[in-house]
Amino acid sequence: MSWKLSSDQLPDLARGAALLGTGGGGDPFIGRLLVERAMAETGPVTVLDPEEVDDDALVIPTAQMGAPTVVVEKIPRGTEPVAALRALERHLGRRAQATMPIECGGINSMIPLLVAARTGLPVVDADGMGRAFPELQMETFSVYGVAGSPLAIAGENDETAIIDTGADNRRMESFARALTIRLGGVGHIAEYAMSGADVKRTAVPRTISLALSLGTAIREARAAHHDAVEALRTALRPTLYSHLRVLFRGKVVDVERRTVEGFARGRVRFAASGGDSSMDVEFQNENLVATVDGDVRCLVPDLIVVLEADTAEPITTEGLRYGQRVTVVGISTPDLMRTPEALATFGPAAFGIRHRFAPVEATPEDAVPAAPRG
Amino acid sequence: MSWKLSSDQLPDLARGAALLGTGGGGDPFIGRLLVERAMAETGPVTVLDPEEVDDDALVIPTAQMGAPTVVVEKIPRGTEPVAALRALERHLGRRAQATMPIECGGINSMIPLLVAARTGLPVVDADGMGRAFPELQMETFSVYGVAGSPLAIAGENDETAIIDTGADNRRMESFARALTIRLGGVGHIAEYAMSGADVKRTAVPRTISLALSLGTAIREARAAHHDAVEALRTALRPTLYSHLRVLFRGKVVDVERRTVEGFARGRVRFAASGGDSSMDVEFQNENLVATVDGDVRCLVPDLIVVLEADTAEPITTEGLRYGQRVTVVGISTPDLMRTPEALATFGPAAFGIRHRFAPVEATPEDAVPAAPRG
Repeated sequence: MSWKLSSDQLPDLARGAALLGTGGGGDPFIGRLLVERAMAETGPVTVLDPEEVDDDALVIPTAQMGAPTVVVEKIPRGTEPVAALRALERHLGRRAQATMPIECGGINSMIPLLVAARTGLPVVDADGMGRAFPELQMETFSVYGVAGSPLAIAGENDETAIIDTGADNRRMESFARALTIRLGGVGHIAEYAMSGADVKRTAVPRTISLALSLGTAIREARAAHHDAVEALRTALRPTLYSHLRVLFRGKVVDVERRTVEGFARGRVRFAASGGDSSMDVEFQNENLVATVDGDVRCLVPDLIVVLEADTAEPITTEGLRYGQRVTVVGISTPDLMRTPEALATFGPAAFGIRHRFAPVEATPEDAVPAAPRG
Repeated sequence: MSWKLSSDQLPDLARGAALLGTGGGGDPFIGRLLVERAMAETGPVTVLDPEEVDDDALVIPTAQMGAPTVVVEKIPRGTEPVAALRALERHLGRRAQATMPIECGGINSMIPLLVAARTGLPVVDADGMGRAFPELQMETFSVYGVAGSPLAIAGENDETAIIDTGADNRRMESFARALTIRLGGVGHIAEYAMSGADVKRTAVPRTISLALSLGTAIREARAAHHDAVEALRTALRPTLYSHLRVLFRGKVVDVERRTVEGFARGRVRFAASGGDSSMDVEFQNENLVATVDGDVRCLVPDLIVVLEADTAEPITTEGLRYGQRVTVVGISTPDLMRTPEALATFGPAAFGIRHRFAPVEATPEDAVPAAPRG
């Protein structure tokens, strides 16, 4: 069933999107402000369940690309993703019937809502990553045979480019990344234009609803003084993301972060709240691998999420600061994202990580020191 | 009057184009081979005098861009510039009535002939640089108000991109350069689509004929054992490039050359054949400034041309080798290329050179040591 997403739901959605962003995806707060401003002018946005989309409808996903470290300093004007959508429509000679997120993490949960609010198009409750990933070929759309090309990219001074690399989505990413860097580190894109039938076949379904429900669960648990991590576990259980594991509790003791080739790359180290053990998390925009004293506890594409210990507020890689007390959790991804072809596209090896993927639910809970209370 | 350019004229044209390339423009030899192969299939190419082009005809210039140091190692397939032209035609929704060079130096005298041979289009006897320059905004087209956008770029694997930066030709260059680098250092482009009226208003006229006549003059002087430099002086006198000055005679004693950010940058030092003086020439793809013992003798946009001493064969920057005996000449550029707005776009300051432009014809001939004979 289609439903209306209103401005007062955006804080919960942004919180859930930051969680699914698994450290990356760009700052959802800035995205939220852009959508709030647009909705103040145009009202709520219609969200379509993927099953409601006509098989022959044209769906054009919209997104921001770039280094999250730049996004927090270079605020978009807000018209860029619509410019990208319109440029792609002109190139295709067809109008879109809906837009859709390419990833459900961070700012990219918000950009399609911004497009929807500004154009009156509905947004499809699904996405192509089921989380956030740093590169454009890392899409379930791509894994299951949808071409990302032609891609439209737009900048803040009305520059546009249309990139067509045929079926080579990796090369499309390379070209779009080169232009994003020349745009100052942030670009807005429309890509993976596809039929409703392809949406149903290749997208991770209902991830806008999921983000909203996770953000709501955290807020409500906080208000009721319940354990927010347990509330998340309960909220996730009936979804495609059914397993949550607490991986570590501790505080940030070291952050190494640099913006290179259009990405935020680095690692963070946490020291245990009790005991001597430490956890390292490596990231390329998003968290990729979490190890405790050298043992792997969670691996991409499963979600590694750093939560602020007291409030369970998700912390993005660019928000990591020395001394923060955190709970690190792992969340299982849908089966669609764990097939051999999916793992070849966005599993550990795609990031140069030598460990073989193992589902996070195989990690025993008792590997984690008990939470100190008070 | 329109005329037919045939395959047997290509060696002379390539030689003249290498001269007008003023050290850059890409290796004309490779371009010549590509055109010869195409002409073997399709016959001679029609060359149109700019005055013959209808005012409302659509002319789409075609070119190669990239570092000449890469071009000699990465031979084009030969279909790329046609792919760029066709991509731009599709984007504009109009077919071109002619193509044209954007520069008259090196390989870019050949690329439009390749397009002409493969498509049956005529090529306009004019260009937008009157020589070679390293960047796409350094065009008389741009100086006199023609937008380079939309630009189409094509790679060897049928990748294409359409770049539209509105009136900002410098940003267009930046975007196209970024994609050229991702294409491995060489891209093929169609840009500055314009009317016949704009060709007449903004292009440097008859530079294909000029290259052909200069290449012919060198060959004929060589065959007759005449002084080829004097033959060039005579050939240039009635043209828009009326002054030639011998700047230096000597041999190559040092070459510094690196491929950075998609360009070949560096400097070459020549030691005098008689005496202690030396000449330095700095280049960014093309030769930019020539100094003798620290005194400026010739400055961009005037042409600094290094000729092999015995044969007067032009030597491109990537062909410079220790020990080569050379004659360095300076050639004056047309008035169209020396206006304040032209100098702002491709004069010394545009390359970070602190010297003020001074016409090469102001250099006294007697500054140069006499040529040793024998």
